[in-house]
Amino acid sequence: MNSIEVRTAAHRQMVDITRQVATVIDGTDDGICHVYVPHTTAAVVINEHADPDVARDLIAAYEAMVPKIRFAHAEGNSDAHLMSTLLGSSVTVPVADGRLRLGTWQGIFFVELDGPRTRKVWVSVL
Amino acid sequence: MNSIEVRTAAHRQMVDITRQVATVIDGTDDGICHVYVPHTTAAVVINEHADPDVARDLIAAYEAMVPKIRFAHAEGNSDAHLMSTLLGSSVTVPVADGRLRLGTWQGIFFVELDGPRTRKVWVSVL
Amino acid sequence: MNSIEVRTAAHRQMVDITRQVATVIDGTDDGICHVYVPHTTAAVVINEHADPDVARDLIAAYEAMVPKIRFAHAEGNSDAHLMSTLLGSSVTVPVADGRLRLGTWQGIFFVELDGPRTRKVWVSVL
Repeated sequence: MNSIEVRTAAHRQMVDITRQVATVIDGTDDGICHVYVPHTTAAVVINEHADPDVARDLIAAYEAMVPKIRFAHAEGNSDAHLMSTLLGSSVTVPVADGRLRLGTWQGIFFVELDGPRTRKVWVSVL
Repeated sequence: MNSIEVRTAAHRQMVDITRQVATVIDGTDDGICHVYVPHTTAAVVINEHADPDVARDLIAAYEAMVPKIRFAHAEGNSDAHLMSTLLGSSVTVPVADGRLRLGTWQGIFFVELDGPRTRKVWVSVL
Repeated sequence: MNSIEVRTAAHRQMVDITRQVATVIDGTDDGICHVYVPHTTAAVVINEHADPDVARDLIAAYEAMVPKIRFAHAEGNSDAHLMSTLLGSSVTVPVADGRLRLGTWQGIFFVELDGPRTRKVWVSVL
C-alpha cells in the first residue's frame, strides 16, 4: 500500500490525482488499482479531466444538492460527511501491462469537501 | 479484461447487463467480479431487476435530483457528469464456484445518462 | 465469503458494523476487504463513527434528498432503491498485516433504508 499526499487549496475542490496514482503502478502489474481515501469529509471519483469546467460544475452541484435541513453535528461540516458517503471513499480501475486502463476522457479526482487541508490517498494494486 | 458492448436507445436509460456480465465468468472462478464503465457520462449500479418500474423510477429520480444551477461546461451535459460521479464508475460482486453471487432481487445495470450511444463495459474477475 | 447478520430497528438507520467486519479478517491477511450488501433497499458506506450525530445527520439528509416526484413502483419504497444506488452496494477497505486499515475517524456502516428487517452482509478478503 502506497500513500500519496494531496494538499488542497479551497474549502471544496477537485484535485486531479491521475498521474500520482499512475506512478504507483509497476510495469508488470495486471489487475485492479484500488484508490482509497482515509478521510470522512473527502471522497474520490472518476470523471472527465479534459475540460476543467466539468470539475467546477461538479463542485457547484455537490454544494447545491446538500438539503437545507438543520444538522446536529457540532463541527458544522455534516454537508461534507454527506457528500463523502454519496461520492464514496474508493475507486477501482483496471490495470493491464502495468498501465492504468482509464477511459479516454477519464481522470481520477480527489474531492476535498472540508478544506483546505493536507490529505492522504492510499493506493494499492491487486 | 473482457469488453462488453452496450447500445443504449434513449437519452437516459437503465440497461440490465447481468447476463452479459455473467458470461464472462469462468466455471472455476472464485473471488470478485469487477464491472467498470470507461465513460464519464454513464455509470453502473446494482439494484432490483424484477419490477421494471424500479428502473423507471430511478431514471426519473436521477433527473429530478440535478440541481437547477447554471453549468459552465460548454457541451451542456454536466448533469450526466454529475450523476456519473454520484452513481459510480464500477461495481464489485462476489463470485463463488464460477457464479456471480448477487442477492435475490439484484441485477447489474448500465446507466446511460447522455445517450443514445454505443458504450463499453469492462469486466474482470479477481 | 463470510456472511454477517444485521438486525435493523428502524425504517431508516445506520448500523456500525466495523467490529463485525474486522472479525472476518485473518491475522495474516494482506490486500483488500470487500463488504457487500445483497439487498436492493439498503447500502453500505464508510464515514465517521466517533460522533453519533453524524450518522443521524446522514439519515436525515438522505431522506430530505429524495425528490418529491410520483413513483411508479407498487411497493412504495422507490426512495429506498434510489438511495441504495447512490450510496452503493459495496465498500472496499485496505487490509495490512491482518488488520483493516481504516482512517482515524472511519467506520463501516450498514445503511438500512426500508426496515426494520434482518439483513445480510457478505465479507471477503482479496
